[in-house]
Amino acid sequence: MTDVEKLSAVLDIQALKARYFRCMDSKDWAGLEAVFAADLVADFRDSTLQHNPDMLIRGAARYVATLAPILEHVTTVHHGHMPEIEILSPTSARGIWAMEDKLWVNEGANLPYRWLHGYGHYHETYAKIGADWKIQTIRLTRLRVDAG
Amino acid sequence: MTDVEKLSAVLDIQALKARYFRCMDSKDWAGLEAVFAADLVADFRDSTLQHNPDMLIRGAARYVATLAPILEHVTTVHHGHMPEIEILSPTSARGIWAMEDKLWVNEGANLPYRWLHGYGHYHETYAKIGADWKIQTIRLTRLRVDAG
Amino acid sequence: MTDVEKLSAVLDIQALKARYFRCMDSKDWAGLEAVFAADLVADFRDSTLQHNPDMLIRGAARYVATLAPILEHVTTVHHGHMPEIEILSPTSARGIWAMEDKLWVNEGANLPYRWLHGYGHYHETYAKIGADWKIQTIRLTRLRVDAG
Repeated sequence: MTDVEKLSAVLDIQALKARYFRCMDSKDWAGLEAVFAADLVADFRDSTLQHNPDMLIRGAARYVATLAPILEHVTTVHHGHMPEIEILSPTSARGIWAMEDKLWVNEGANLPYRWLHGYGHYHETYAKIGADWKIQTIRLTRLRVDAG
Repeated sequence: MTDVEKLSAVLDIQALKARYFRCMDSKDWAGLEAVFAADLVADFRDSTLQHNPDMLIRGAARYVATLAPILEHVTTVHHGHMPEIEILSPTSARGIWAMEDKLWVNEGANLPYRWLHGYGHYHETYAKIGADWKIQTIRLTRLRVDAG
Repeated sequence: MTDVEKLSAVLDIQALKARYFRCMDSKDWAGLEAVFAADLVADFRDSTLQHNPDMLIRGAARYVATLAPILEHVTTVHHGHMPEIEILSPTSARGIWAMEDKLWVNEGANLPYRWLHGYGHYHETYAKIGADWKIQTIRLTRLRVDAG
């Protein structure tokens, strides 16, 4: 790859992750599914206060189908920061993002807390499928989670 | 445009928006006005708790002249995240930014709250005027606003 | 420098600063020292509630040796935003970053507060030493600090 191709790939992946956050927080579930490779592996087992083995989910459609009803009655704000993106080949890359999220749980939601405020890092891999980069694996580690 | 020209434009617009935030929070009003095109359209009608039709303002000078006295006795922190920038031509572009802002209202300010903490997205267009990109239109949508 | 070299330098410096934050918050002190030039000048005299003349420190090893025991019993989250990077030559650059940090002080720490939440800007210079950009000087200014 040329330097320009690598720079373009880095910025494309940054914009991909920006769409991940915007689609998540605006509850655009079709848009969210489109940022993932179909064979996504999503590891959110340590995203809340307690380790939850059910939150290792394979498949973009299944992940979004799991997530959407959980967040139906929840206002969410997810922000990503400070990417470290490494282009491994013309069709593969990996990255780490700092993150912060806030959840406000509204009436009708089935969650064991009324609010959650967390901090941590996403550890991700990316695949270029056709013309588009997609998130292939995503794992969230936490620095701290508060909830009440 | 070449790929390099597009990449340069994306990074130039990101730095432009960084100056917007820094000038805003350091109350550098001349610097803030300089990030805008003279014929700016600023739509902040939904930036606070209630829709405010007065906050659709045309003209960079008029917008800054409206904003500066409002914020004179307010400490502000505005942070932008996760840009999605699309270069449409050598002189036009559009972008979306996630954002968070915090206001602490000090003595002497004329605002109906003592603090405000908001989250949302900026929806913007950019024009290249001479050698420099400028913000031509800016509209803020909100995910959530708390104030007290 | 060509435009591509400048763009690569900007993204390299952004990834360098991302490592600074990640190593800080994960307490990877060897990793943190590696983002600095050996002759680092670190000016954190205004980083907390009161001006502290002791927090002007020369030398990467000495800075990390000072910081690590302070943070041993503290959970930290530092986030950087909105870089303004200026490449001055093939081996020198400067930059400004918006920032926010949160500290939660745990048992055993020797600090005059239980928590701290701050906002401000890093003002930095960078040097390319061999193949790698390093932070050569770092100074933190504050918009606001709360602690309790």
